[in-house]
Amino acid sequence: MTATKYPAKQHCVKVAQNLGVSEGLIYLKGDVLKERHDTDVELTFRQESNFYYLTGFAEHDAHVVYDIKQQKLTLLPYKLPNDHIVWMGAPPTETQLRAKYDVDEVVWSTEVVSVINNSGASVVYALREEDVPKGVSVSINTDALKEALVTARMYKSPYEIEVMRKVNHISSNAHVALMKAAKKAHSEVELDALFRYETARFGARDQAYNPIVGAGENSAILHYGKNAESFNGNYDQLCLVDAGAELGCYASDITRTWPLSGKFSGDAKTLYSIVLDMQKAVLAALKPGVEYEDMHRLAARIAVEGLQKAGVLKAEASVDDMLAAHVDGYFFPHGLGHMIGLDVHDVGGYPAGVARIQAPGMQYLRMRRTLEPGFVITVEPGVYFVEFILQEAKNKPEVNKCINWDVTERFAKLGGVRIEDCVVITEDGIDNLTIVPKEVADIEALMA
Amino acid sequence: MTATKYPAKQHCVKVAQNLGVSEGLIYLKGDVLKERHDTDVELTFRQESNFYYLTGFAEHDAHVVYDIKQQKLTLLPYKLPNDHIVWMGAPPTETQLRAKYDVDEVVWSTEVVSVINNSGASVVYALREEDVPKGVSVSINTDALKEALVTARMYKSPYEIEVMRKVNHISSNAHVALMKAAKKAHSEVELDALFRYETARFGARDQAYNPIVGAGENSAILHYGKNAESFNGNYDQLCLVDAGAELGCYASDITRTWPLSGKFSGDAKTLYSIVLDMQKAVLAALKPGVEYEDMHRLAARIAVEGLQKAGVLKAEASVDDMLAAHVDGYFFPHGLGHMIGLDVHDVGGYPAGVARIQAPGMQYLRMRRTLEPGFVITVEPGVYFVEFILQEAKNKPEVNKCINWDVTERFAKLGGVRIEDCVVITEDGIDNLTIVPKEVADIEALMA
Repeated sequence: MTATKYPAKQHCVKVAQNLGVSEGLIYLKGDVLKERHDTDVELTFRQESNFYYLTGFAEHDAHVVYDIKQQKLTLLPYKLPNDHIVWMGAPPTETQLRAKYDVDEVVWSTEVVSVINNSGASVVYALREEDVPKGVSVSINTDALKEALVTARMYKSPYEIEVMRKVNHISSNAHVALMKAAKKAHSEVELDALFRYETARFGARDQAYNPIVGAGENSAILHYGKNAESFNGNYDQLCLVDAGAELGCYASDITRTWPLSGKFSGDAKTLYSIVLDMQKAVLAALKPGVEYEDMHRLAARIAVEGLQKAGVLKAEASVDDMLAAHVDGYFFPHGLGHMIGLDVHDVGGYPAGVARIQAPGMQYLRMRRTLEPGFVITVEPGVYFVEFILQEAKNKPEVNKCINWDVTERFAKLGGVRIEDCVVITEDGIDNLTIVPKEVADIEALMA
Repeated sequence: MTATKYPAKQHCVKVAQNLGVSEGLIYLKGDVLKERHDTDVELTFRQESNFYYLTGFAEHDAHVVYDIKQQKLTLLPYKLPNDHIVWMGAPPTETQLRAKYDVDEVVWSTEVVSVINNSGASVVYALREEDVPKGVSVSINTDALKEALVTARMYKSPYEIEVMRKVNHISSNAHVALMKAAKKAHSEVELDALFRYETARFGARDQAYNPIVGAGENSAILHYGKNAESFNGNYDQLCLVDAGAELGCYASDITRTWPLSGKFSGDAKTLYSIVLDMQKAVLAALKPGVEYEDMHRLAARIAVEGLQKAGVLKAEASVDDMLAAHVDGYFFPHGLGHMIGLDVHDVGGYPAGVARIQAPGMQYLRMRRTLEPGFVITVEPGVYFVEFILQEAKNKPEVNKCINWDVTERFAKLGGVRIEDCVVITEDGIDNLTIVPKEVADIEALMA
């Protein structure tokens, strides 16, 4: 990283360009500190993502004002009352804040109304009318800012990519730690706790989302988050770990699936290899100009081919016919992936006016866009045997007829497999931010 | 524990008795599932404490109705839509819920209005008008329920005490793990992460509050939560760890302070011993009938005596005069402790109409009550050298004149010490739920 400060000013300039205006203020309200229900238990503070994008400032109850004409960025932090020093330590001074953040001016939040009213600007661009402090006399525009922020946030800057690389590496190392610990672990909760520990101790103290640690049939519950079951001595089970920490408000998102024993059984290796083939085909095909939904279709085709070869789908069925009947969606029932950045499912997945594709699996695709350099996306194909979905497949004659139910029932004991990496779209391909081994031989060597 | 189910019904009966009425409904709305800002990142769900108290049910978007006359407890859980099974797994059935929880009836939450309107009750006791679902035609009373809940929750049942013992033991063991790891740890964040790990892996996956891990001068920042500093090779520093996990919505709260090296230096031993004497004196004096504020005064007196013996306070000053001048409050600037239960600072600290005592230290006391059997409280005396407070002491002639500033400055390098246990008030004394060693010799042996 060349820059040492979070490039807040550069982000403001991008957003202003997207607004396409020559004057006015961009105004955002930072998140406020909250307590749990009717108690004094403080909830862990997490800055609102757009506010962080324009400031790099992760403290509560702040405001930000960017003057488009003057290109002047003003951060308005909350000033703690004097006696809070006893409880929280001495807060930073205005000078310290100006030195730490990429802003032109630091003014305490109590001045926010006068900063806006005295700016000489004719309009305040805000996300919501109710965000704007009472007393502001400048006219408010809430129509344009959201789209301008989304469009800016879609293209990650080199600084952002390096933060994402760092948090993906921290999370990657934690995944490796889990693989090494699996044989001696007793329960899902132990591995969940270990993941949080192995990321937190390297400074990534929060998770980008609640980890999923599911063994056996739990691996086929797509958003399983209980992570509470004991392994009961059954180390033949596959364990799916979908977990990624957050660093400086940037998300990571990684999934690996491996046998608790460290050794893939025949069917597990077959199932795993289908998903790995899906992912590798997509990673090899990704580059600017590609439609993301076509990548989902590519993965779906490889799933159907692989399941046919494994005997789950009948040998005599045509792959094209099966894809036309959406057979893929009964085994690969979620989308291929999503944008990732300040939020794990980051903004910008769908351009305005573009609708979801109504088909099994595809309907949940979180992104339909032509890929461009600077996008950071996940690639997370999966194949699962979900009782509820298989029941639906049985009720659809055109799907039912393609399935060998005896083989399916054998595979169903495995649950499911998902493999997920985080990648940057570059000028001519990808830069993979995830560094967890995924070849069968490499996983077995690591876990041996 | 004799009971295997959380005693929800017994809690409802207690609250109804406190209301002192023979008919009517008690109604509470459980907390709803929330997302982070304008995203789909789900926040970790934590049930509202009163709702948990009346149900033992920790899932989101539920309601509870207790019919006082019929003594009938109805739980109204949220029914997941069918396609959620794919994402979240099969939800429990009504029969499974009735078997798991101490309730008379389970009805899906969509029926809440008719359950209330068809009850034949003349009044609904609720916490807030806005909690009550639209369409309820029974008259609403929001004046009485809060106090009835507080009074019930103050007296912990044997079941509650056993849960609190369990979580205090989990947290105690985690404190011991930190002490053993300290010599090889590099930073506060590493110990913070280790505490969370050592509690989570034993099933206590959430913290009752954000841990405080402060080394050196950070130990004197009372609500320090950054936990971000490196030890920079300085293992002579004292490290203060104030951390407690939550289990089944019940809190633990424990503080220990020890040298990172595992060996107390002269001044550190002196300072630590003063605080230990304060705590031991209070623990020996606690029993039903005692005023909690008198326990704060007892600890304050021992602090002044100890600081005088250590040379921080002048030998010629009278202890009584110093206490009258509130010298204690400049070194022991927070309250002795608080009620603990479903919340770390639990309900019931102050009876209605009782005000805070306006004096340094005492003003922050979270509890003024005559102790009764069944109360669970913390005892957490501390002595700190806080620059901001010492500056105030300098400006008060009657305080300034009692202090040896050269000795004070020597001690100030240590930061502060706090020692905190969680105890149950029994018929004739206490039952200490905390099992972390605290004698100097025991700590040194443990960390050797």
